[in-house]
Amino acid sequence: MTTDLLATSSPASSPVRRHDPGSRGFASDNYSGVHPEVLEAIAAANGGHQTSYGGDVYTAHLQDVFRGHFGPRAEVFPVFNGTGANVVSLQALTDRWASVVCAASAHIHVDESGAPEKVGGLKLLTVPTPDGKLTPELIDIEARGFDDEHRAQPQVVSITQTTELGTRYTVDEIAAICAHAHSKGMRVHLDGARISNAAAGLGVDFAAFTSEVGVDIVSFGGTKNGLMMGEVVVVLDPAAVPGMLWVRKSAMQLASKMRFISAQFDALLSGDLWLRNASHANAMATRLAEAVSGLPGLQVVRPVQANAVFAVLPAEVTQRLQERFRFYVWDEATGEVRWMTTFDTTEADIDAFSSAVRDELEAYASR
Amino acid sequence: MTTDLLATSSPASSPVRRHDPGSRGFASDNYSGVHPEVLEAIAAANGGHQTSYGGDVYTAHLQDVFRGHFGPRAEVFPVFNGTGANVVSLQALTDRWASVVCAASAHIHVDESGAPEKVGGLKLLTVPTPDGKLTPELIDIEARGFDDEHRAQPQVVSITQTTELGTRYTVDEIAAICAHAHSKGMRVHLDGARISNAAAGLGVDFAAFTSEVGVDIVSFGGTKNGLMMGEVVVVLDPAAVPGMLWVRKSAMQLASKMRFISAQFDALLSGDLWLRNASHANAMATRLAEAVSGLPGLQVVRPVQANAVFAVLPAEVTQRLQERFRFYVWDEATGEVRWMTTFDTTEADIDAFSSAVRDELEAYASR
Amino acid sequence: MTTDLLATSSPASSPVRRHDPGSRGFASDNYSGVHPEVLEAIAAANGGHQTSYGGDVYTAHLQDVFRGHFGPRAEVFPVFNGTGANVVSLQALTDRWASVVCAASAHIHVDESGAPEKVGGLKLLTVPTPDGKLTPELIDIEARGFDDEHRAQPQVVSITQTTELGTRYTVDEIAAICAHAHSKGMRVHLDGARISNAAAGLGVDFAAFTSEVGVDIVSFGGTKNGLMMGEVVVVLDPAAVPGMLWVRKSAMQLASKMRFISAQFDALLSGDLWLRNASHANAMATRLAEAVSGLPGLQVVRPVQANAVFAVLPAEVTQRLQERFRFYVWDEATGEVRWMTTFDTTEADIDAFSSAVRDELEAYASR
Amino acid sequence: MTTDLLATSSPASSPVRRHDPGSRGFASDNYSGVHPEVLEAIAAANGGHQTSYGGDVYTAHLQDVFRGHFGPRAEVFPVFNGTGANVVSLQALTDRWASVVCAASAHIHVDESGAPEKVGGLKLLTVPTPDGKLTPELIDIEARGFDDEHRAQPQVVSITQTTELGTRYTVDEIAAICAHAHSKGMRVHLDGARISNAAAGLGVDFAAFTSEVGVDIVSFGGTKNGLMMGEVVVVLDPAAVPGMLWVRKSAMQLASKMRFISAQFDALLSGDLWLRNASHANAMATRLAEAVSGLPGLQVVRPVQANAVFAVLPAEVTQRLQERFRFYVWDEATGEVRWMTTFDTTEADIDAFSSAVRDELEAYASR
Repeated sequence: MTTDLLATSSPASSPVRRHDPGSRGFASDNYSGVHPEVLEAIAAANGGHQTSYGGDVYTAHLQDVFRGHFGPRAEVFPVFNGTGANVVSLQALTDRWASVVCAASAHIHVDESGAPEKVGGLKLLTVPTPDGKLTPELIDIEARGFDDEHRAQPQVVSITQTTELGTRYTVDEIAAICAHAHSKGMRVHLDGARISNAAAGLGVDFAAFTSEVGVDIVSFGGTKNGLMMGEVVVVLDPAAVPGMLWVRKSAMQLASKMRFISAQFDALLSGDLWLRNASHANAMATRLAEAVSGLPGLQVVRPVQANAVFAVLPAEVTQRLQERFRFYVWDEATGEVRWMTTFDTTEADIDAFSSAVRDELEAYASR
Repeated sequence: MTTDLLATSSPASSPVRRHDPGSRGFASDNYSGVHPEVLEAIAAANGGHQTSYGGDVYTAHLQDVFRGHFGPRAEVFPVFNGTGANVVSLQALTDRWASVVCAASAHIHVDESGAPEKVGGLKLLTVPTPDGKLTPELIDIEARGFDDEHRAQPQVVSITQTTELGTRYTVDEIAAICAHAHSKGMRVHLDGARISNAAAGLGVDFAAFTSEVGVDIVSFGGTKNGLMMGEVVVVLDPAAVPGMLWVRKSAMQLASKMRFISAQFDALLSGDLWLRNASHANAMATRLAEAVSGLPGLQVVRPVQANAVFAVLPAEVTQRLQERFRFYVWDEATGEVRWMTTFDTTEADIDAFSSAVRDELEAYASR
Repeated sequence: MTTDLLATSSPASSPVRRHDPGSRGFASDNYSGVHPEVLEAIAAANGGHQTSYGGDVYTAHLQDVFRGHFGPRAEVFPVFNGTGANVVSLQALTDRWASVVCAASAHIHVDESGAPEKVGGLKLLTVPTPDGKLTPELIDIEARGFDDEHRAQPQVVSITQTTELGTRYTVDEIAAICAHAHSKGMRVHLDGARISNAAAGLGVDFAAFTSEVGVDIVSFGGTKNGLMMGEVVVVLDPAAVPGMLWVRKSAMQLASKMRFISAQFDALLSGDLWLRNASHANAMATRLAEAVSGLPGLQVVRPVQANAVFAVLPAEVTQRLQERFRFYVWDEATGEVRWMTTFDTTEADIDAFSSAVRDELEAYASR
Repeated sequence: MTTDLLATSSPASSPVRRHDPGSRGFASDNYSGVHPEVLEAIAAANGGHQTSYGGDVYTAHLQDVFRGHFGPRAEVFPVFNGTGANVVSLQALTDRWASVVCAASAHIHVDESGAPEKVGGLKLLTVPTPDGKLTPELIDIEARGFDDEHRAQPQVVSITQTTELGTRYTVDEIAAICAHAHSKGMRVHLDGARISNAAAGLGVDFAAFTSEVGVDIVSFGGTKNGLMMGEVVVVLDPAAVPGMLWVRKSAMQLASKMRFISAQFDALLSGDLWLRNASHANAMATRLAEAVSGLPGLQVVRPVQANAVFAVLPAEVTQRLQERFRFYVWDEATGEVRWMTTFDTTEADIDAFSSAVRDELEAYASR
């Protein structure tokens, strides 16, 4: 009967492109595709058999690659996505009775549908911040009650670099947070979904603002910087290592054909691709901010320190722009919008968009 | 400073192949790589921007592709891996107070590090089976106590097609299980990590043993049949649909650049690639079983109904074979080994391996 | 050998009173003991055998007792404590993917060590309030994103009556919250750890501010109003009933000898004991507030609407008072203290304490 | 308005006895009430204020009481019920990635509605046993895969003393289990819902089969031995102590008026009440077994080593007996019934029941 099935089924067709590869917008760095060098690395890793679940040579090599960036203590565990990296990281650092202090704007609180609570049983203690950045003082609002059995114990401070608001911690700011957290017996998790944009913006290597200043675990983002999919948990606290295999597996973040995640990171981090991609995205955001700053009726409302521009402009202008370009309204109430750039944003994209912004603002003003 | 970083960082290098693409073994279908047509589909889906988190055209198209296979009621939700597909499926079908009846050999019990319990809060009620297959009678061993508040309520029967033991349910067997489960108010989950091998072996389409006989939700496996990574939850029970978005997201199984999972399934299922790959793997297992059956000192101990051969042979022979070919011992106590074939297993692979088996058995007998 | 054990073990001793039954303070209504009528009811329920796990006649009768207070739709489920009642209630109202909107000062957020997150997998969405009371406007700060898969779905509004801050919702305020929540498809949970104090203060029956205005589930507190231990989940939403048995049991809140919880509530609610106890506690708080209001150096800083007085006074005075009377500092930073009264607080207790406050304030002023 | 409420509400009534205190059966030791000495202890502990949540003098004293029984290393944590004690104990001994080996008949698997899985995220690895008792060999069926990330790590062996089947481990059997478990890096939990019956039956003190032979944590049962409600977690492994406060609280097992649980245990364990109660219950079971053994048509099918008798008799006889006495059918298929005795079972109860059994069997035989 198998023969019948084959006889009646559709034959192979050429791969179908169902979208316009020339269309780009400013909605999210997740909207972009895969950098060509990453695709080539995937292809190079293909063929033949490799041990599954991380026993392959690409994953083995990745340890060296990351130790080159984070120092000899780093242990790396590739996972599928950012939510997974965060929830695995937080569980690896905590006892069953833990809570996590984070900014109210943190991705783990706002955008992960309760995964830290549901999968990790973790309580998030959120602190409002002006710019998405915690400080020792802000942390202390919730990092308290260490002898109180009625309080889920604050064991981790989670910071995001760069933040959801496009801002960037300095090296010294992270050092101060780590020193403060450690003085209270807490560990520090860095959600680095855009960690390369931070390094590129700071002009320092990854270790400078992580392993060298006391960060205990890092969710190292790849997807938003040109990978197809994949993140890596970089464990810097040796005490968190032993349970990692089981935390990752039971969090459903263990890839069977892991070589294809590891090969992507190999492509990103063995050379300078991570830096080229991130620097370019950052530069495009700066170019955009410069082009629209000062336009009447528009205000860039947050520092542009990575690959995002936040601006306030008339809702009617936003609406007209959205008919031509994809981007998100960040806050309906204030009219704030978010424009993200990415590794494949071109100068021409920026120029076309900033012209459109200018034109629409002028048209609006003249109505 | 960015300029400095760029100046001192390593330039891009050509993609490095770190492994021998000609090496293949019999350890697992997860050891194989990506079928070339799937890689081409990924490349075709690349470039430009597409809405993230499943808002892309490839994922939209996938609904049609799967409805072509499973009927118009199917709703599909791509996820990362098999554990994710299973835990998402089980949660989508259950209340907070549910338990799940499954075979003691089921992947959800044996190989998922407690993810159903830990992430879903589910209790698994396991039943020993001779061949990995449940029956209404076996199900009834645990499907009871429906009015007992001390008993987590059995709400789902989970079956695996093909099973962990290389066996295959007939269409009628699954129909009987579904009728029985439904008569008790339970739903049926089919773990289809190797569902294509089952369809190819049965010589019927997917609907014949799923949607048409009452299966309520399917973990549709892609990775073991030639994809890079990706599975799809196929929801056939409309009542399970509304919560799927949140169950998937909070289970950390929502891919941001989903187009690259969907495009792989497009390549697999729009034509006959799924069937070619699975039929080939199955045929290679049959070829292997036929080649070694009857060899003195070796016994093929389970029916070969998919892409696995289970055999018992002297431990010393196993050891010598493992020096040359990768495969796993299934049961140390009995000396049972498992040989998996895959889409890229060649006839020459089988012949070389079966010759080696024959030679080692002869050498062993003559010692 | 059993005989030997008996021979060498200590014989029965008369029951030992290890504490001073005349000592009372203002620390918490949990510091008080059991009302004598409740103890008598426990003794009356003793002797002979009764079906365990709620199959006894006292629990059966309790349904009638509560329906007398809450109307014919009420279904009641005794549990052990307030945390249990809350976490059971919230789970009974929610899907796996839910979040709960509550005041930042709510007990479920501040004092339950993460039980809602850990046991229920629930995400709490907290809103700062001036007085511990939510409003439709405050609820809307977090009751949003109903179509967003990245957001744990807000399915419940949880309010506390009376609040942690000694304040009290009016009937109309709760009605408005219920109408608003229902209009968004959300349910309303009322944490009634001090629900009797609220009813006594409002001068209305329980139904007036729960079942009659749309509350869907109530954690009915008994312990703080004179019981030994025990709370009741009053389910008013029929859809929440079917799963209650399993939610309660799996939350480890099913008492085997349940008759002794039910008999306590029988004593509390069949007559007017609930009202006498609560009215008295409330009156004692009012007496205390009146006695200390206007004293130089002291300010009563919140409305006294139940059995708590919140005051700000010099830290040195607080310290001296604490050497003689038990009470808690509520906020170290502001010098705010909390004085709780209870069913067994006497007028003499109040007078002695308020005299002490006056004396210490005067002594302080004269230094 | 408060006055109105009081005016219209029912006045206090005398406590109502709603059941027949002379009725007793053989259904469960949970059907019995409270031993009078325990009620007296509760009354003695009443009055005045005591620090809540375990800060009272009765709970402080309980540490000494238990150390007298279990040795100086014991740390005790009162909780509400057996399910709570078990789930708290198992969590205190485990990492997030743990599994627990137990008998297939264990209460934690059969009767707790999935609480260990749901609240603790624990996977139970169950082993069929002939008599409810694990052995090192039986444990090894599931205590394996310690380096396998796909396997929730077996970290605890949980045994029940006495078992659900009325059998009893010897001291040496528990010692052997502990030595074996420890040799594998696992800890041992003893579910002692009927631990007093075990000690009484063995004729040794509690330490002899717990702390002295390596048990790491004990769920110490009180309810089934004459308390109203309450169990104690006895922590013998110092490493499990630090998290206990938070594990207990987040498991919703922290009593506010804890003095009333502690006072009950004080009454039970400071003198010999525990032993009198348990010895009596055991003796009644023996009396019953002796009275019915050898009756034609009836077979006592399990050793009577505690307060349960398991017998097989004709279903029709069972049915007739159940019309006059409460007890449970244990296994519908085999006709096995369970008869439990308790501290308040009288010799007359046994004699009346055994006569009835004899009469019904004779009547049955003569039909």
